[in-house]
Amino acid sequence: MEDFTERFVSGELVYDGGLLKVRRDVVRLPDGGESAREYIRHPGACAILARFDDGRILLERQFRYPHGRDFIEIPAGKLEPGEPHLETAKRELAEETGYVARSWKRLCLIHTAIAYTDEGIEVYLATGLEKRGGPTLDAGEFLETLVVPFDEALAMVKSGRITDSKSMGALLWYATWKDG
Amino acid sequence: MEDFTERFVSGELVYDGGLLKVRRDVVRLPDGGESAREYIRHPGACAILARFDDGRILLERQFRYPHGRDFIEIPAGKLEPGEPHLETAKRELAEETGYVARSWKRLCLIHTAIAYTDEGIEVYLATGLEKRGGPTLDAGEFLETLVVPFDEALAMVKSGRITDSKSMGALLWYATWKDG
Repeated sequence: MEDFTERFVSGELVYDGGLLKVRRDVVRLPDGGESAREYIRHPGACAILARFDDGRILLERQFRYPHGRDFIEIPAGKLEPGEPHLETAKRELAEETGYVARSWKRLCLIHTAIAYTDEGIEVYLATGLEKRGGPTLDAGEFLETLVVPFDEALAMVKSGRITDSKSMGALLWYATWKDG
Repeated sequence: MEDFTERFVSGELVYDGGLLKVRRDVVRLPDGGESAREYIRHPGACAILARFDDGRILLERQFRYPHGRDFIEIPAGKLEPGEPHLETAKRELAEETGYVARSWKRLCLIHTAIAYTDEGIEVYLATGLEKRGGPTLDAGEFLETLVVPFDEALAMVKSGRITDSKSMGALLWYATWKDG
């Protein structure tokens, strides 16, 4: 198997934003040449397929500024420093929807845009849902929770109403394999 | 339905790289407050589920620097300025694998990371494949083409060998609905 490894030569943080940390590294290519690689350092994230006993699931409607419009997606959020993935998933579900879950099961890992971000999203199935209060959203966060039958959510993937990669991945994974 | 629209107040291009164009906009929130939104302007992309008559498909192994390792993924690439999506798909398939296809059908659109990039990937099913020569890769691009049965590719999604969002989305979409 041919080795395509690109090796770090030099690099710097070219943009250090509140959300985005952008690096530009010069790398040694497999053929000995040099090239630049620009990419985002991301803390990692979790997403939650939260399923009621009757088969309905939790979705959210949220405005996504890069696209200038609302998206329908599953609950998700970034890891806090040092936070284990499962804790992030539990925290984000509670914060965004007000629900807690009795059972948690890891479904899959999704790398969103491997060419230019190291973001990985761990996807969990949450069942045994119980409402524990209202959402407690972060400052500047606005969203609406929807409860829809799983088949309806899947139909929203097919129709193109749901195009967000983590939500598509989680819903299609569950449609294909359930939690097995 | 509550309006969550965030409106542009001011903004600038904070990083203008060879690949990444990063913007930071100040926005007016639905509650009247202000916040900053950092995001990437992306030209858009296409990905190709290329299927032989015997059911095998084309995959690629490619080193992805942000993760420091190889990934298995489906052929894909960015739009050139002014290029229609289908032309991008045809060009990238030919450049990366050396194959042309008699039939093209759009499967779906995937938005990779809606919180911080406007990237959308149009996914096509390509059939009637014919080898027309070797790959003609861009400078600094190194990859290996694999031909595997569809069920084996799907098993690579289940096992976590394929975690790239566009590849997961395309394979699970096709597993769920084929081209209908």
